[in-house]
Amino acid sequence: MKLLEDKIKEVGRVLPGDVLKVDAFLNHQVDPKLMAEMGKEFAKLFKDDDITRIVTVESSGIAPAVMAGLYMDVPVVFARKHKSLTLTDDVYTSEVYSYTKQTSNQISIDKRFIQPNDRLLIIDDFLANGQAVQGLLDVANQANVSVNGIGIVIEKSYQKGHELIEKTGIHLESLAKIRSLDNDKVTFVED
Amino acid sequence: MKLLEDKIKEVGRVLPGDVLKVDAFLNHQVDPKLMAEMGKEFAKLFKDDDITRIVTVESSGIAPAVMAGLYMDVPVVFARKHKSLTLTDDVYTSEVYSYTKQTSNQISIDKRFIQPNDRLLIIDDFLANGQAVQGLLDVANQANVSVNGIGIVIEKSYQKGHELIEKTGIHLESLAKIRSLDNDKVTFVED
Repeated sequence: MKLLEDKIKEVGRVLPGDVLKVDAFLNHQVDPKLMAEMGKEFAKLFKDDDITRIVTVESSGIAPAVMAGLYMDVPVVFARKHKSLTLTDDVYTSEVYSYTKQTSNQISIDKRFIQPNDRLLIIDDFLANGQAVQGLLDVANQANVSVNGIGIVIEKSYQKGHELIEKTGIHLESLAKIRSLDNDKVTFVED
Repeated sequence: MKLLEDKIKEVGRVLPGDVLKVDAFLNHQVDPKLMAEMGKEFAKLFKDDDITRIVTVESSGIAPAVMAGLYMDVPVVFARKHKSLTLTDDVYTSEVYSYTKQTSNQISIDKRFIQPNDRLLIIDDFLANGQAVQGLLDVANQANVSVNGIGIVIEKSYQKGHELIEKTGIHLESLAKIRSLDNDKVTFVED
């Protein structure tokens, strides 16, 4: 998605440790018009996947997921993150490790908000090692519903998340695919 | 806002301890079309307030704030919540106590995302004791910028937050105003 790649080039910052900071438009400050364009793009990319509901993880997934939900006309559920949780029967939970923050969080979704015949679209801001997506796939598995699509805003294509998802056969779409952050420079995968 | 009041009546749940659960459309599952209507309504209510930027707090404020940002054509910044934070010079921080969760969080906003001549609109999902709004007012004060509006999705008008804001003279608009949750029933303030 050219608009997104241009924005990354313009205001994204490459930091030591293979970090791409996009807090100027995605995960701290948010550009609502860009989010709306991303929502439209997700709606187009997944229009044949028969999606009934979008799931994401708080907080950075919420803006793109809600915009996608608007243009796809489906509800959105954001999983809550907790350091730890007293387990109850009322929620699906999974463990998600963040390599960036080097901490583990439980994510949880209230069982009322996944229905037996749902066909889910997972949306997230970043795909690197694929931990958050794995957590949401685990939740879908517990709920015994199918995941028909995975939509990512920015994918680091050289990390293992991409391959992990490819192996599942689930329809994956990433709006921006990064080939490398070497030499403090963002290089995109050629389409 | 009738659409919102109807939704609250339809799927809101009153729980012991003066709690109104709206996790079916606002703060766990999200109704994107309702969020868009709320965004339009905020844009209408604050059209004369010369707003340059919206600030909110993760996570439940994000969806309504981003929709308001879309229709007002201004950027949105969501404050991050932390249990505690190593203070640096690069962020504004404030302490926010949650009566519901009985925990205290620091909220922080990167200094790059508030500009000297900003006129802020604070948006949040709930107004009860006004702690989150106070935290954001404190941040605006540190940044030496003015707050020209406060937009709330659901206000519990009988708690002290409403009065606290009224005393500041800042333009306050709440899309739904609750007079009481007595007898497990939601009663709205008559307009």
